Amino acid sequence: MALQFNDAGDLLPAVAQDWESGEVLMVAFINEEAYRRTLATGRMHYYSRSRKKIWMKGETSGHFQEVKEVLVDCDEDALVFKIRQVGGGACHTGYNSCFFRRAESDGSLTLIKDRKAFDPEQVYG
Amino acid sequence: MALQFNDAGDLLPAVAQDWESGEVLMVAFINEEAYRRTLATGRMHYYSRSRKKIWMKGETSGHFQEVKEVLVDCDEDALVFKIRQVGGGACHTGYNSCFFRRAESDGSLTLIKDRKAFDPEQVYG
Repeated sequence: MALQFNDAGDLLPAVAQDWESGEVLMVAFINEEAYRRTLATGRMHYYSRSRKKIWMKGETSGHFQEVKEVLVDCDEDALVFKIRQVGGGACHTGYNSCFFRRAESDGSLTLIKDRKAFDPEQVYG
Repeated sequence: MALQFNDAGDLLPAVAQDWESGEVLMVAFINEEAYRRTLATGRMHYYSRSRKKIWMKGETSGHFQEVKEVLVDCDEDALVFKIRQVGGGACHTGYNSCFFRRAESDGSLTLIKDRKAFDPEQVYG
Protein backbone atom coordinates (compact mmCIF):
# COMPACT_ATOMS: atom_id res chain seq x y z
CA MET A 1 0.00 0.00 0.00
CA ALA A 2 1.95 2.98 -1.31
CA LEU A 3 0.23 5.58 0.84
CA GLN A 4 1.24 7.48 3.95
CA PHE A 5 -0.96 5.58 6.37
CA ASN A 6 1.71 5.14 9.00
CA ASP A 7 -0.64 3.94 11.67
CA ALA A 8 -4.33 3.14 11.96
CA GLY A 9 -5.13 6.65 13.15
CA ASP A 10 -3.65 8.39 10.12
CA LEU A 11 -6.15 10.30 8.04
CA LEU A 12 -5.61 11.63 4.53
CA PRO A 13 -7.76 14.24 2.82
CA ALA A 14 -9.97 12.71 0.12
CA VAL A 15 -11.55 14.76 -2.65
CA ALA A 16 -14.67 13.39 -4.35
CA GLN A 17 -14.86 14.85 -7.85
CA ASP A 18 -17.67 14.27 -10.33
CA TRP A 19 -16.07 12.07 -12.98
CA GLU A 20 -17.98 13.80 -15.80
CA SER A 21 -18.30 17.48 -14.88
CA GLY A 22 -15.11 17.72 -12.81
CA GLU A 23 -17.02 19.52 -10.03
CA VAL A 24 -15.63 18.91 -6.55
CA LEU A 25 -18.57 17.45 -4.62
CA MET A 26 -17.08 16.95 -1.18
CA VAL A 27 -13.82 16.79 0.76
CA ALA A 28 -13.53 14.43 3.70
CA PHE A 29 -10.97 12.21 5.40
CA ILE A 30 -10.07 8.60 4.81
CA ASN A 31 -8.06 6.12 6.84
CA GLU A 32 -6.38 2.95 5.66
CA GLU A 33 -9.35 0.66 6.35
CA ALA A 34 -11.78 3.05 4.64
CA TYR A 35 -9.41 3.19 1.67
CA ARG A 36 -9.27 -0.62 1.49
CA ARG A 37 -13.05 -0.89 1.65
CA THR A 38 -13.39 1.77 -1.06
CA LEU A 39 -11.05 -0.11 -3.41
CA ALA A 40 -12.65 -3.46 -2.58
CA THR A 41 -16.29 -2.37 -3.01
CA GLY A 42 -16.02 0.44 -5.57
CA ARG A 43 -18.06 2.65 -3.24
CA MET A 44 -16.68 5.59 -1.28
CA HIS A 45 -15.97 4.98 2.39
CA TYR A 46 -14.70 7.77 4.62
CA TYR A 47 -13.61 8.15 8.23
CA SER A 48 -15.68 10.48 10.39
CA ARG A 49 -13.56 12.40 12.88
CA SER A 50 -16.61 13.45 14.90
CA ARG A 51 -18.19 9.99 15.04
CA LYS A 52 -14.80 8.23 15.13
CA LYS A 53 -15.88 5.56 12.68
CA ILE A 54 -15.81 4.54 9.06
CA TRP A 55 -18.94 5.35 7.10
CA MET A 56 -20.03 4.53 3.60
CA LYS A 57 -21.37 7.54 1.74
CA GLY A 58 -25.02 6.73 1.07
CA GLU A 59 -25.49 4.31 3.97
CA THR A 60 -28.33 6.50 5.30
CA SER A 61 -29.41 8.47 2.24
CA GLY A 62 -28.92 5.87 -0.48
CA HIS A 63 -26.87 8.51 -2.29
CA PHE A 64 -23.72 6.47 -2.62
CA GLN A 65 -20.66 7.26 -4.69
CA GLU A 66 -19.46 4.84 -7.34
CA VAL A 67 -15.69 5.04 -7.79
CA LYS A 68 -14.50 5.50 -11.36
CA GLU A 69 -10.84 6.40 -10.83
CA VAL A 70 -8.51 6.95 -7.87
CA LEU A 71 -5.65 9.46 -8.11
CA VAL A 72 -2.78 9.70 -5.64
CA ASP A 73 -0.61 12.76 -5.13
CA CYS A 74 3.19 13.14 -5.23
CA ASP A 75 3.65 12.78 -1.47
CA GLU A 76 1.14 9.93 -1.25
CA ASP A 77 -0.80 11.78 1.40
CA ALA A 78 -3.83 13.05 -0.51
CA LEU A 79 -6.37 11.34 -2.78
CA VAL A 80 -8.77 12.35 -5.53
CA PHE A 81 -11.65 10.00 -6.26
CA LYS A 82 -13.40 10.48 -9.58
CA ILE A 83 -16.89 9.31 -8.77
CA ARG A 84 -20.41 8.99 -10.06
CA GLN A 85 -22.79 10.41 -7.48
CA VAL A 86 -25.86 8.19 -7.22
CA GLY A 87 -29.14 9.78 -6.12
CA GLY A 88 -29.79 13.43 -5.44
CA GLY A 89 -26.46 14.75 -4.35
CA ALA A 90 -23.33 14.57 -2.24
CA CYS A 91 -24.25 17.09 0.45
CA HIS A 92 -26.40 16.36 3.49
CA THR A 93 -27.94 19.85 3.07
CA GLY A 94 -29.55 18.82 -0.22
CA TYR A 95 -27.18 20.48 -2.66
CA ASN A 96 -25.45 18.36 -5.29
CA SER A 97 -22.10 19.55 -3.91
CA CYS A 98 -20.97 20.54 -0.42
CA PHE A 99 -19.34 23.58 -2.05
CA PHE A 100 -22.49 25.62 -2.62
CA ARG A 101 -21.06 28.90 -1.29
CA ARG A 102 -18.37 31.25 -2.48
CA ALA A 103 -16.13 33.23 -0.11
CA GLU A 104 -15.89 36.87 -1.07
CA SER A 105 -12.69 38.88 -0.58
CA ASP A 106 -13.99 40.20 2.77
CA GLY A 107 -14.52 36.61 3.97
CA SER A 108 -18.35 36.65 3.70
CA LEU A 109 -20.14 33.74 2.02
CA THR A 110 -22.50 33.90 -0.97
CA LEU A 111 -24.83 31.11 -2.10
CA ILE A 112 -23.93 30.09 -5.66
CA LYS A 113 -26.43 27.29 -6.31
CA ASP A 114 -29.87 28.00 -7.79
CA ARG A 115 -31.58 25.04 -6.18
CA LYS A 116 -31.17 21.94 -4.07
CA ALA A 117 -30.87 18.55 -5.71
CA PHE A 118 -33.05 16.84 -3.08
CA ASP A 119 -35.04 17.56 0.06
CA PRO A 120 -32.88 16.60 3.06
CA GLU A 121 -35.97 16.33 5.32
CA GLN A 122 -37.34 13.63 3.09
CA VAL A 123 -34.05 11.77 2.79
CA TYR A 124 -32.69 12.00 6.35
CA GLY A 125 -36.04 12.41 8.13
CA MET B 1 -14.62 34.73 9.38
CA ALA B 2 -17.20 32.00 8.79
CA LEU B 3 -14.74 29.12 8.85
CA GLN B 4 -13.88 26.48 11.42
CA PHE B 5 -10.55 27.94 12.44
CA ASN B 6 -11.12 27.54 16.15
CA ASP B 7 -7.57 28.29 17.12
CA ALA B 8 -4.38 29.31 15.37
CA GLY B 9 -3.29 25.70 15.00
CA ASP B 10 -6.39 24.54 13.13
CA LEU B 11 -5.75 23.36 9.61
CA LEU B 12 -8.34 22.84 6.90
CA PRO B 13 -7.81 20.85 3.69
CA ALA B 14 -7.48 23.14 0.67
CA VAL B 15 -8.01 21.89 -2.88
CA ALA B 16 -6.40 23.86 -5.72
CA GLN B 17 -8.41 23.26 -8.88
CA ASP B 18 -7.57 24.62 -12.33
CA TRP B 19 -10.24 27.24 -12.93
CA GLU B 20 -10.49 26.37 -16.65
CA SER B 21 -9.99 22.61 -16.96
CA GLY B 22 -11.35 21.65 -13.53
CA GLU B 23 -8.32 19.41 -12.93
CA VAL B 24 -7.35 19.08 -9.27
CA LEU B 25 -3.74 20.29 -9.17
CA MET B 26 -2.88 19.86 -5.50
CA VAL B 27 -4.34 19.33 -2.05
CA ALA B 28 -2.66 20.91 0.95
CA PHE B 29 -3.57 22.49 4.28
CA ILE B 30 -4.36 26.06 5.19
CA ASN B 31 -4.60 27.85 8.53
CA GLU B 32 -6.41 31.07 9.32
CA GLU B 33 -3.44 33.36 8.64
CA ALA B 34 -2.64 31.61 5.33
CA TYR B 35 -6.32 31.98 4.39
CA ARG B 36 -6.25 35.70 5.22
CA ARG B 37 -3.10 36.21 3.17
CA THR B 38 -4.61 34.28 0.26
CA LEU B 39 -7.74 36.46 0.24
CA ALA B 40 -5.70 39.65 0.71
CA THR B 41 -3.12 38.98 -2.02
CA GLY B 42 -5.05 36.80 -4.47
CA ARG B 43 -2.19 34.29 -4.39
CA MET B 44 -2.37 30.88 -2.74
CA HIS B 45 -0.74 30.58 0.68
CA TYR B 46 -0.67 27.24 2.52
CA TYR B 47 0.53 25.96 5.87
CA SER B 48 3.30 23.38 5.78
CA ARG B 49 2.92 20.76 8.51
CA SER B 50 6.49 19.51 8.04
CA ARG B 51 8.11 22.96 8.04
CA LYS B 52 5.56 24.38 10.50
CA LYS B 53 5.20 27.63 8.58
CA ILE B 54 3.07 29.45 6.05
CA TRP B 55 4.38 29.36 2.51
CA MET B 56 3.28 31.05 -0.67
CA LYS B 57 3.03 28.65 -3.58
CA GLY B 58 5.64 29.87 -6.06
CA GLU B 59 7.90 31.58 -3.54
CA THR B 60 10.81 29.36 -4.69
CA SER B 61 9.71 28.23 -8.15
CA GLY B 62 7.94 31.36 -9.38
CA HIS B 63 5.01 29.05 -10.17
CA PHE B 64 2.44 30.88 -8.11
CA GLN B 65 -1.31 30.34 -8.10
CA GLU B 66 -3.64 33.20 -8.89
CA VAL B 67 -6.96 32.82 -7.07
CA LYS B 68 -10.06 33.11 -9.26
CA GLU B 69 -12.76 31.85 -6.88
CA VAL B 70 -12.93 30.46 -3.34
CA LEU B 71 -15.57 27.85 -2.42
CA VAL B 72 -16.45 26.83 1.13
CA ASP B 73 -18.14 23.58 2.09
CA CYS B 74 -21.28 22.95 4.16
CA ASP B 75 -19.41 22.39 7.42
CA GLU B 76 -17.05 25.31 6.77
CA ASP B 77 -14.07 23.05 7.26
CA ALA B 78 -12.83 22.48 3.70
CA LEU B 79 -12.00 24.84 0.84
CA VAL B 80 -11.75 24.68 -2.93
CA PHE B 81 -9.70 27.35 -4.65
CA LYS B 82 -10.26 27.79 -8.37
CA ILE B 83 -6.89 29.01 -9.50
CA ARG B 84 -4.81 29.89 -12.51
CA GLN B 85 -1.48 28.10 -12.25
CA VAL B 86 1.31 30.43 -13.35
CA GLY B 87 4.48 28.88 -14.76
CA GLY B 88 5.14 25.25 -15.47
CA GLY B 89 3.00 23.45 -12.97
CA ALA B 90 1.73 22.90 -9.46
CA CYS B 91 3.85 19.90 -8.49
CA HIS B 92 7.43 20.06 -7.23
CA THR B 93 8.16 16.90 -9.27
CA GLY B 94 7.61 18.79 -12.55
CA TYR B 95 4.13 17.57 -13.40
CA ASN B 96 1.34 20.10 -13.94
CA SER B 97 -0.65 18.37 -11.16
CA CYS B 98 0.43 16.51 -8.03
CA PHE B 99 -2.08 13.81 -9.05
CA PHE B 100 -0.02 12.20 -11.81
CA ARG B 101 -0.65 8.61 -10.70
CA ARG B 102 -3.68 6.38 -10.59
CA ALA B 103 -4.24 3.75 -7.89
CA GLU B 104 -5.27 0.41 -9.34
CA SER B 105 -7.70 -1.88 -7.54
CA ASP B 106 -4.79 -3.83 -6.01
CA GLY B 107 -3.41 -0.56 -4.58
CA SER B 108 -0.48 -0.27 -7.02
CA LEU B 109 0.20 3.09 -8.70
CA THR B 110 0.34 3.79 -12.45
CA LEU B 111 1.75 6.94 -14.05
CA ILE B 112 -0.98 8.67 -16.04
CA LYS B 113 0.86 11.73 -17.38
CA ASP B 114 2.71 11.65 -20.71
CA ARG B 115 5.26 14.28 -19.79
CA LYS B 116 6.40 16.76 -17.19
CA ALA B 117 5.45 20.41 -17.50
CA PHE B 118 8.88 21.63 -16.37
CA ASP B 119 12.27 20.35 -15.27
CA PRO B 120 12.38 20.44 -11.45
CA GLU B 121 16.22 20.40 -11.46
CA GLN B 122 16.22 23.65 -13.39
CA VAL B 123 13.52 25.26 -11.24
CA TYR B 124 14.52 24.13 -7.75
CA GLY B 125 18.26 23.57 -8.40
